[in-house]
Amino acid sequence: MDQLRSLIRDVPDFPEPGIMFKDIAPLLGDAHALNRALDLMSDPHRDQSLSHVAGIEARGFILATPVAARIEAGFVPIRKPGKLPWKTVQTTYDLEYGTDALEAHSDAVTPGDKVLVVDDVLATGGTAAAAVELVQSLGAEVVGISVLVELAFLGGRAKIDVPVHAVIVYDG
Amino acid sequence: MDQLRSLIRDVPDFPEPGIMFKDIAPLLGDAHALNRALDLMSDPHRDQSLSHVAGIEARGFILATPVAARIEAGFVPIRKPGKLPWKTVQTTYDLEYGTDALEAHSDAVTPGDKVLVVDDVLATGGTAAAAVELVQSLGAEVVGISVLVELAFLGGRAKIDVPVHAVIVYDG
Repeated sequence: MDQLRSLIRDVPDFPEPGIMFKDIAPLLGDAHALNRALDLMSDPHRDQSLSHVAGIEARGFILATPVAARIEAGFVPIRKPGKLPWKTVQTTYDLEYGTDALEAHSDAVTPGDKVLVVDDVLATGGTAAAAVELVQSLGAEVVGISVLVELAFLGGRAKIDVPVHAVIVYDG
Repeated sequence: MDQLRSLIRDVPDFPEPGIMFKDIAPLLGDAHALNRALDLMSDPHRDQSLSHVAGIEARGFILATPVAARIEAGFVPIRKPGKLPWKTVQTTYDLEYGTDALEAHSDAVTPGDKVLVVDDVLATGGTAAAAVELVQSLGAEVVGISVLVELAFLGGRAKIDVPVHAVIVYDG
Protein backbone atom coordinates (compact mmCIF):
# COMPACT_ATOMS: atom_id res chain seq x y z
CA MET A 1 0.00 0.00 0.00
CA ASP A 2 2.94 2.33 0.77
CA GLN A 3 4.20 1.83 -2.76
CA LEU A 4 0.79 2.85 -4.12
CA ARG A 5 0.61 5.81 -1.75
CA SER A 6 4.01 7.05 -2.89
CA LEU A 7 2.57 7.32 -6.43
CA ILE A 8 -0.17 9.75 -5.42
CA ARG A 9 0.79 13.36 -6.03
CA ASP A 10 -0.34 16.32 -3.92
CA VAL A 11 -1.38 19.24 -6.13
CA PRO A 12 -2.07 22.42 -4.12
CA ASP A 13 -4.93 24.77 -5.00
CA PHE A 14 -6.77 22.45 -7.43
CA PRO A 15 -9.54 22.72 -8.48
CA GLU A 16 -9.82 25.76 -6.19
CA PRO A 17 -7.50 27.76 -3.91
CA GLY A 18 -7.02 26.03 -0.57
CA ILE A 19 -7.77 22.53 -1.85
CA MET A 20 -4.96 19.96 -1.79
CA PHE A 21 -5.83 17.64 -4.68
CA LYS A 22 -4.79 13.98 -4.58
CA ASP A 23 -3.65 13.27 -8.15
CA ILE A 24 -3.76 9.54 -8.90
CA ALA A 25 -2.32 9.95 -12.41
CA PRO A 26 1.21 8.77 -11.48
CA LEU A 27 -0.27 5.62 -9.93
CA LEU A 28 -2.49 4.94 -12.98
CA GLY A 29 0.49 5.46 -15.26
CA ASP A 30 2.56 2.76 -13.55
CA ALA A 31 1.55 -0.64 -14.98
CA HIS A 32 2.46 -2.60 -11.86
CA ALA A 33 0.77 -0.17 -9.47
CA LEU A 34 -2.33 0.01 -11.66
CA ASN A 35 -2.79 -3.76 -11.63
CA ARG A 36 -2.10 -3.94 -7.90
CA ALA A 37 -4.66 -1.23 -7.18
CA LEU A 38 -7.26 -2.93 -9.39
CA ASP A 39 -6.68 -6.23 -7.59
CA LEU A 40 -7.09 -4.56 -4.20
CA MET A 41 -10.32 -2.89 -5.33
CA SER A 42 -11.70 -6.10 -6.86
CA ASP A 43 -10.65 -8.84 -4.45
CA PRO A 44 -13.23 -8.13 -1.70
CA HIS A 45 -16.01 -8.46 -4.29
CA ARG A 46 -15.00 -11.56 -6.23
CA ASP A 47 -17.38 -13.90 -4.42
CA GLN A 48 -20.40 -11.62 -4.24
CA SER A 49 -21.96 -12.67 -7.57
CA LEU A 50 -22.27 -9.05 -8.63
CA SER A 51 -24.13 -8.29 -11.83
CA HIS A 52 -22.75 -4.78 -12.42
CA VAL A 53 -20.11 -2.27 -11.42
CA ALA A 54 -21.29 1.33 -11.74
CA GLY A 55 -18.67 4.02 -12.38
CA ILE A 56 -19.12 7.72 -11.67
CA GLU A 57 -18.07 10.13 -14.45
CA ALA A 58 -15.30 10.82 -15.29
CA ARG A 59 -12.48 9.49 -13.12
CA GLY A 60 -14.68 6.72 -11.74
CA PHE A 61 -14.88 5.31 -15.28
CA ILE A 62 -11.10 4.74 -15.21
CA LEU A 63 -11.36 2.25 -12.35
CA ALA A 64 -14.89 0.85 -12.64
CA THR A 65 -14.55 -1.01 -15.94
CA PRO A 66 -11.37 -2.93 -15.08
CA VAL A 67 -12.93 -3.87 -11.73
CA ALA A 68 -16.04 -5.04 -13.61
CA ALA A 69 -13.92 -7.07 -16.02
CA ARG A 70 -11.99 -8.68 -13.14
CA ILE A 71 -15.10 -9.78 -11.26
CA GLU A 72 -17.01 -10.70 -14.45
CA ALA A 73 -19.72 -8.10 -14.06
CA GLY A 74 -21.11 -5.61 -16.55
CA PHE A 75 -20.30 -1.89 -16.42
CA VAL A 76 -22.85 0.89 -15.87
CA PRO A 77 -22.01 4.57 -16.49
CA ILE A 78 -23.30 7.18 -14.03
CA ARG A 79 -23.03 10.58 -15.68
CA LYS A 80 -23.69 14.29 -15.40
CA PRO A 81 -27.07 15.37 -16.83
CA GLY A 82 -27.46 15.34 -20.60
CA LYS A 83 -24.55 13.02 -21.35
CA LEU A 84 -26.39 9.70 -21.62
CA PRO A 85 -28.23 9.17 -24.91
CA TRP A 86 -31.10 6.91 -23.82
CA LYS A 87 -33.93 7.35 -21.30
CA THR A 88 -32.54 8.26 -17.90
CA VAL A 89 -33.36 8.53 -14.22
CA GLN A 90 -31.86 11.35 -12.18
CA THR A 91 -30.87 12.08 -8.59
CA THR A 92 -30.01 15.55 -7.33
CA TYR A 93 -27.72 16.28 -4.41
CA ASP A 94 -26.52 19.30 -2.48
CA LEU A 95 -23.17 20.98 -2.98
CA GLU A 96 -21.62 23.65 -0.76
CA TYR A 97 -23.29 26.21 -3.01
CA GLY A 98 -26.27 24.93 -5.03
CA THR A 99 -27.08 21.46 -6.26
CA ASP A 100 -25.78 18.97 -8.81
CA ALA A 101 -27.29 15.85 -10.38
CA LEU A 102 -26.35 12.41 -11.65
CA GLU A 103 -28.10 10.26 -14.25
CA ALA A 104 -28.20 6.60 -15.22
CA HIS A 105 -29.96 4.89 -18.08
CA SER A 106 -33.38 3.75 -16.88
CA ASP A 107 -32.65 0.20 -18.13
CA ALA A 108 -29.08 0.06 -16.78
CA VAL A 109 -30.00 -2.27 -13.92
CA THR A 110 -33.18 -4.00 -12.79
CA PRO A 111 -34.54 -5.46 -9.54
CA GLY A 112 -32.49 -8.51 -8.60
CA ASP A 113 -29.24 -6.98 -9.83
CA LYS A 114 -26.36 -6.61 -7.36
CA VAL A 115 -24.21 -3.56 -7.96
CA LEU A 116 -20.88 -2.21 -6.71
CA VAL A 117 -20.37 1.56 -7.08
CA VAL A 118 -16.81 2.65 -7.94
CA ASP A 119 -15.17 6.06 -7.84
CA ASP A 120 -11.60 7.29 -7.65
CA VAL A 121 -11.78 9.38 -4.48
CA LEU A 122 -14.27 9.50 -1.60
CA ALA A 123 -14.25 13.06 -0.25
CA THR A 124 -17.35 14.65 1.30
CA GLY A 125 -19.45 11.71 0.08
CA GLY A 126 -22.22 13.65 -1.65
CA THR A 127 -21.57 12.27 -5.11
CA ALA A 128 -21.12 8.71 -3.88
CA ALA A 129 -24.31 8.83 -1.79
CA ALA A 130 -26.23 10.15 -4.81
CA ALA A 131 -24.86 7.37 -7.00
CA VAL A 132 -25.99 4.75 -4.47
CA GLU A 133 -29.45 6.31 -4.32
CA LEU A 134 -29.66 6.42 -8.12
CA VAL A 135 -28.89 2.71 -8.51
CA GLN A 136 -31.29 1.84 -5.67
CA SER A 137 -34.03 3.91 -7.37
CA LEU A 138 -33.92 1.40 -10.24
CA GLY A 139 -34.63 -1.42 -7.79
CA ALA A 140 -31.16 -2.94 -7.72
CA GLU A 141 -29.22 -3.77 -4.56
CA VAL A 142 -26.04 -1.77 -3.92
CA VAL A 143 -23.63 -4.07 -2.10
CA GLY A 144 -21.02 -1.39 -1.47
CA ILE A 145 -18.75 1.37 -2.68
CA SER A 146 -15.14 0.82 -3.69
CA VAL A 147 -12.74 3.75 -4.01
CA LEU A 148 -9.02 3.97 -4.59
CA VAL A 149 -8.55 6.88 -2.18
CA GLU A 150 -10.56 7.99 0.87
CA LEU A 151 -10.08 11.43 2.42
CA ALA A 152 -11.30 10.18 5.79
CA PHE A 153 -10.91 13.57 7.50
CA LEU A 154 -13.80 14.86 5.38
CA GLY A 155 -16.18 12.33 6.92
CA GLY A 156 -17.83 11.21 3.66
CA ARG A 157 -18.34 7.65 4.89
CA ALA A 158 -21.00 8.88 7.36
CA LYS A 159 -23.25 9.91 4.45
CA ILE A 160 -23.27 6.44 2.90
CA ASP A 161 -25.47 3.61 4.13
CA VAL A 162 -23.66 0.77 2.34
CA PRO A 163 -20.21 -0.69 3.12
CA VAL A 164 -17.29 1.42 1.86
CA HIS A 165 -13.96 -0.11 0.87
CA ALA A 166 -10.93 2.15 0.28
CA VAL A 167 -7.46 1.04 -0.80
CA ILE A 168 -5.62 4.15 0.44
CA VAL A 169 -6.92 6.22 3.36
CA TYR A 170 -5.73 9.71 4.32
CA ASP A 171 -6.54 10.58 7.92
CA GLY A 172 -5.50 14.20 7.78
CA MET B 1 -18.74 -9.93 -33.49
CA ASP B 2 -22.41 -10.19 -34.43
CA GLN B 3 -23.24 -10.81 -30.78
CA LEU B 4 -21.39 -7.63 -29.81
CA ARG B 5 -23.00 -5.67 -32.64
CA SER B 6 -26.46 -6.75 -31.51
CA LEU B 7 -25.75 -5.06 -28.15
CA ILE B 8 -25.14 -1.62 -29.69
CA ARG B 9 -28.24 0.55 -29.62
CA ASP B 10 -29.16 3.16 -32.22
CA VAL B 11 -30.38 6.36 -30.57
CA PRO B 12 -31.77 8.86 -33.08
CA ASP B 13 -31.15 12.61 -32.76
CA PHE B 14 -28.41 12.44 -30.12
CA PRO B 15 -26.53 14.60 -29.27
CA GLU B 16 -28.14 16.71 -32.04
CA PRO B 17 -31.06 16.35 -34.46
CA GLY B 18 -30.13 14.20 -37.44
CA ILE B 19 -27.36 12.27 -35.68
CA MET B 20 -27.85 8.51 -35.16
CA PHE B 21 -25.87 7.80 -31.99
CA LYS B 22 -24.30 4.36 -31.47
CA ASP B 23 -24.92 3.67 -27.77
CA ILE B 24 -22.48 1.07 -26.43
CA ALA B 25 -24.06 1.00 -22.95
CA PRO B 26 -25.96 -2.29 -23.49
CA LEU B 27 -22.69 -3.96 -24.58
CA LEU B 28 -20.74 -2.56 -21.61
CA GLY B 29 -23.51 -3.72 -19.27
CA ASP B 30 -23.22 -7.35 -20.40
CA ALA B 31 -20.35 -9.00 -18.52
CA HIS B 32 -19.61 -11.56 -21.22
CA ALA B 33 -19.75 -9.04 -24.07
CA LEU B 34 -17.62 -6.56 -22.13
CA ASN B 35 -14.85 -9.09 -21.57
CA ARG B 36 -15.03 -10.28 -25.18
CA ALA B 37 -14.78 -6.70 -26.47
CA LEU B 38 -11.83 -5.95 -24.18
CA ASP B 39 -10.04 -9.09 -25.38
CA LEU B 40 -10.61 -8.11 -29.01
CA MET B 41 -9.27 -4.61 -28.36
CA SER B 42 -6.26 -5.88 -26.42
CA ASP B 43 -5.14 -8.99 -28.30
CA PRO B 44 -3.47 -7.24 -31.28
CA HIS B 45 -1.30 -5.29 -28.85
CA ARG B 46 -0.20 -7.95 -26.38
CA ASP B 47 3.25 -8.47 -27.92
CA GLN B 48 4.11 -4.84 -28.64
CA SER B 49 5.77 -4.10 -25.27
CA LEU B 50 3.61 -1.02 -24.84
CA SER B 51 4.36 1.26 -21.91
CA HIS B 52 1.01 3.10 -21.81
CA VAL B 53 -2.57 3.13 -23.03
CA ALA B 54 -4.00 6.64 -23.36
CA GLY B 55 -7.76 7.05 -23.01
CA ILE B 56 -9.74 10.01 -24.33
CA GLU B 57 -12.26 11.59 -21.91
CA ALA B 58 -14.86 10.47 -21.00
CA ARG B 59 -16.05 7.31 -22.78
CA GLY B 60 -12.50 6.43 -23.84
CA PHE B 61 -11.65 6.05 -20.13
CA ILE B 62 -14.15 3.19 -19.90
CA LEU B 63 -12.20 1.03 -22.34
CA ALA B 64 -8.62 2.30 -22.03
CA THR B 65 -7.87 1.21 -18.46
CA PRO B 66 -9.01 -2.40 -18.81
CA VAL B 67 -7.02 -2.64 -22.05
CA ALA B 68 -4.01 -1.21 -20.20
CA ALA B 69 -4.47 -3.72 -17.38
CA ARG B 70 -4.73 -6.63 -19.85
CA ILE B 71 -1.54 -5.76 -21.72
CA GLU B 72 0.31 -4.71 -18.52
CA ALA B 73 0.74 -1.08 -19.48
CA GLY B 74 0.05 2.09 -17.51
CA PHE B 75 -2.95 4.33 -18.18
CA VAL B 76 -2.76 7.96 -19.31
CA PRO B 77 -5.80 10.27 -19.24
CA ILE B 78 -6.34 12.67 -22.15
CA ARG B 79 -8.84 15.31 -21.04
CA LYS B 80 -10.69 18.47 -21.96
CA PRO B 81 -8.88 21.66 -20.91
CA GLY B 82 -8.79 22.50 -17.21
CA LYS B 83 -9.57 19.01 -15.92
CA LEU B 84 -6.05 17.74 -15.24
CA PRO B 85 -4.50 19.05 -12.03
CA TRP B 86 -0.79 19.03 -12.91
CA LYS B 87 1.25 20.80 -15.64
CA THR B 88 -0.20 20.03 -19.05
CA VAL B 89 0.47 20.16 -22.78
CA GLN B 90 -2.38 20.99 -25.14
CA THR B 91 -3.39 20.33 -28.75
CA THR B 92 -6.21 22.19 -30.48
CA TYR B 93 -8.26 20.78 -33.33
CA ASP B 94 -10.99 21.99 -35.66
CA LEU B 95 -14.66 21.16 -35.20
CA GLU B 96 -17.41 21.80 -37.72
CA TYR B 97 -17.90 25.15 -36.02
CA GLY B 98 -14.95 26.45 -34.02
CA THR B 99 -12.16 24.56 -32.28
CA ASP B 100 -11.69 22.26 -29.32
CA ALA B 101 -8.66 21.15 -27.35
CA LEU B 102 -7.24 18.16 -25.50
CA GLU B 103 -4.67 18.09 -22.71
CA ALA B 104 -2.30 15.56 -21.18
CA HIS B 105 -0.01 15.88 -18.19
CA SER B 106 3.40 17.04 -19.39
CA ASP B 107 5.04 14.11 -17.57
CA ALA B 108 2.48 11.48 -18.66
CA VAL B 109 4.84 9.86 -21.15
CA THR B 110 8.46 10.44 -22.18
CA PRO B 111 10.64 9.71 -25.22
CA GLY B 112 11.07 5.95 -25.54
CA ASP B 113 7.54 5.19 -24.38
CA LYS B 114 5.25 3.24 -26.72
CA VAL B 115 1.61 4.23 -26.48
CA LEU B 116 -1.73 2.92 -27.72
CA VAL B 117 -4.57 5.47 -27.93
CA VAL B 118 -8.04 4.13 -27.05
CA ASP B 119 -11.47 5.62 -27.60
CA ASP B 120 -14.97 4.22 -27.77
CA VAL B 121 -16.00 5.39 -31.24
CA LEU B 122 -14.00 6.63 -34.24
CA ALA B 123 -16.23 9.07 -36.14
CA THR B 124 -14.78 12.00 -38.10
CA GLY B 125 -11.38 11.35 -36.54
CA GLY B 126 -10.61 14.86 -35.33
CA THR B 127 -10.41 13.95 -31.65
CA ALA B 128 -8.40 10.79 -32.26
CA ALA B 129 -5.92 12.60 -34.54
CA ALA B 130 -5.48 15.30 -31.89
CA ALA B 131 -4.87 12.68 -29.20
CA VAL B 132 -2.17 11.04 -31.34
CA GLU B 133 -0.53 14.42 -31.94
CA LEU B 134 -0.66 15.23 -28.22
CA VAL B 135 1.12 12.02 -27.21
CA GLN B 136 3.67 12.47 -30.00
CA SER B 137 4.33 16.04 -28.83
CA LEU B 138 5.70 14.55 -25.60
CA GLY B 139 8.21 12.52 -27.60
CA ALA B 140 6.53 9.13 -27.22
CA GLU B 141 5.76 6.75 -30.08
CA VAL B 142 2.08 6.11 -30.85
CA VAL B 143 1.83 2.55 -32.13
CA GLY B 144 -1.85 2.78 -33.05
CA ILE B 145 -5.42 3.59 -32.15
CA SER B 146 -7.88 1.01 -30.85
CA VAL B 147 -11.62 1.72 -30.87
CA LEU B 148 -14.64 -0.42 -30.11
CA VAL B 149 -16.72 1.09 -32.92
CA GLU B 150 -15.72 2.72 -36.21
CA LEU B 151 -18.21 4.75 -38.27
CA ALA B 152 -16.27 4.06 -41.45
CA PHE B 153 -18.65 6.07 -43.66
CA LEU B 154 -17.41 9.24 -41.94
CA GLY B 155 -13.87 8.61 -43.19
CA GLY B 156 -12.09 9.35 -39.92
CA ARG B 157 -9.33 6.83 -40.57
CA ALA B 158 -7.95 9.07 -43.36
CA LYS B 159 -7.06 11.76 -40.81
CA ILE B 160 -4.90 9.41 -38.73
CA ASP B 161 -1.32 8.52 -39.62
CA VAL B 162 -0.99 5.51 -37.29
CA PRO B 163 -2.66 2.06 -37.63
CA VAL B 164 -6.32 1.98 -36.53
CA HIS B 165 -7.93 -1.17 -35.12
CA ALA B 166 -11.73 -1.32 -34.73
CA VAL B 167 -13.73 -4.21 -33.27
CA ILE B 168 -17.05 -3.27 -34.91
CA VAL B 169 -17.22 -1.34 -38.18
CA TYR B 170 -20.32 0.36 -39.60
CA ASP B 171 -20.05 0.94 -43.35
CA GLY B 172 -23.18 3.05 -43.72
